[in-house]
Amino acid sequence: MAELDSLHHVAIAVRNIAEAVAWYRERFRCEIAYQDETWAMLKFGNTNLALVLPEQHPPHLGFTSPQALGSPRLKTHRDGTRSFYTTDSSGNTVELMDPTSV
Amino acid sequence: MAELDSLHHVAIAVRNIAEAVAWYRERFRCEIAYQDETWAMLKFGNTNLALVLPEQHPPHLGFTSPQALGSPRLKTHRDGTRSFYTTDSSGNTVELMDPTSV
Repeated sequence: MAELDSLHHVAIAVRNIAEAVAWYRERFRCEIAYQDETWAMLKFGNTNLALVLPEQHPPHLGFTSPQALGSPRLKTHRDGTRSFYTTDSSGNTVELMDPTSV
Repeated sequence: MAELDSLHHVAIAVRNIAEAVAWYRERFRCEIAYQDETWAMLKFGNTNLALVLPEQHPPHLGFTSPQALGSPRLKTHRDGTRSFYTTDSSGNTVELMDPTSV
């Protein structure tokens, strides 16, 4: 089977970061990879859940994609990942991540 | 490290299933696990992306959870998975899946 791309993270909008972290930690075995008052990243067994404030960041899906390899649209983020954002055919925000950067 | 729970699938709302399948297949290495006119499931390397019509199914995250083990709220689905739906502290729809059923 050919190698498949991966969902690096899914980001959902929450009204309060600490409240949402507590909600997910009570129900799921996951680890806090990062948390401040403006966003958090929870590590699950196979991917990551980002909790964001809707006024700061859109909910989105972050996948690795061969199309992000060397794209001139790439931006480098604080965590070293390189990606660009687009919207799918229905307006959902999707992040295409350089597979070599994750 | 203790075992962590997994994101079995993320379901997003799209306006047309075939159009959305084509959009994701053009950008990502993923396989079509199921597709009809009302929904589709795309298999990625580490999880699955469900494409649903908003009038039929809410967008949601489906995680395995120890809390779903033997819960009286469990429903068995056509694919044999057992789960129940809830909403998180911000109103996002979350599916808690029996880890032994996925």
